[in-house]
Amino acid sequence: MKIKAIEHIGIAVENAGQSSPFWNHLLGIKKTGHEVVEEQGVSTVIFDTGRGKIELLEALSEDSAIAKYITKKGAGIHHICLEVDDIETAITDLQSAGVNLIYDQPQVGAEGMLITFVHPRSAGGVLVELAQKPV
Amino acid sequence: MKIKAIEHIGIAVENAGQSSPFWNHLLGIKKTGHEVVEEQGVSTVIFDTGRGKIELLEALSEDSAIAKYITKKGAGIHHICLEVDDIETAITDLQSAGVNLIYDQPQVGAEGMLITFVHPRSAGGVLVELAQKPV
Repeated sequence: MKIKAIEHIGIAVENAGQSSPFWNHLLGIKKTGHEVVEEQGVSTVIFDTGRGKIELLEALSEDSAIAKYITKKGAGIHHICLEVDDIETAITDLQSAGVNLIYDQPQVGAEGMLITFVHPRSAGGVLVELAQKPV
Repeated sequence: MKIKAIEHIGIAVENAGQSSPFWNHLLGIKKTGHEVVEEQGVSTVIFDTGRGKIELLEALSEDSAIAKYITKKGAGIHHICLEVDDIETAITDLQSAGVNLIYDQPQVGAEGMLITFVHPRSAGGVLVELAQKPV
């Protein structure tokens, strides 16, 4: 397993339309995508610095993980995503080291990425997404 | 002002020695630095993916912002840092747009970076550090 980059930072927002202007107009980071990921219960808006993306995450429903997160902790940074060369190897390597993963098979995330998450209890309170670019 | 990259993600930890092996040995991200930043009241350990760093932040004392953060919210992601081409321009541009900054003059952060922070109330609950590489 090799970590290649910080792929993105996921930010839980109440309303992506209201949050976008800060990233887009005030900071001037280019908006490059807008996608609904039904499996994760989120609508995403993506801004790309060219070296790492900001992904705004708005809940699709009240039982979405993002809605629950905002209720519990408020809007803010939800997770970080690291790009891996090979998601299958990453899952095998981390599980054999006793790291707690949320999915033991790769799921399809935003932008067609193959993903899993390290549980925050295995990562010092940080929700770490691992993502392999679609082949 | 131009945002060039996600420079790093700052993670509040109780004990950097205990937290480092996850990033270093399990994920295999290379440790590239270890620095005390007295002005920010933190000891940092830096891991570099080559495209974005992970910066562990351990409080130097109980009145450090990191100690207060952990007491209030627990260990976890504390801030994100975006690299800017020119910190002075960034400060001027954002202040004139009504964005609330924590420092209106650049401070010296880890690795000699010239930094300020956008207050979370201006950034949807996210503490955003802006950093210019030392010239």
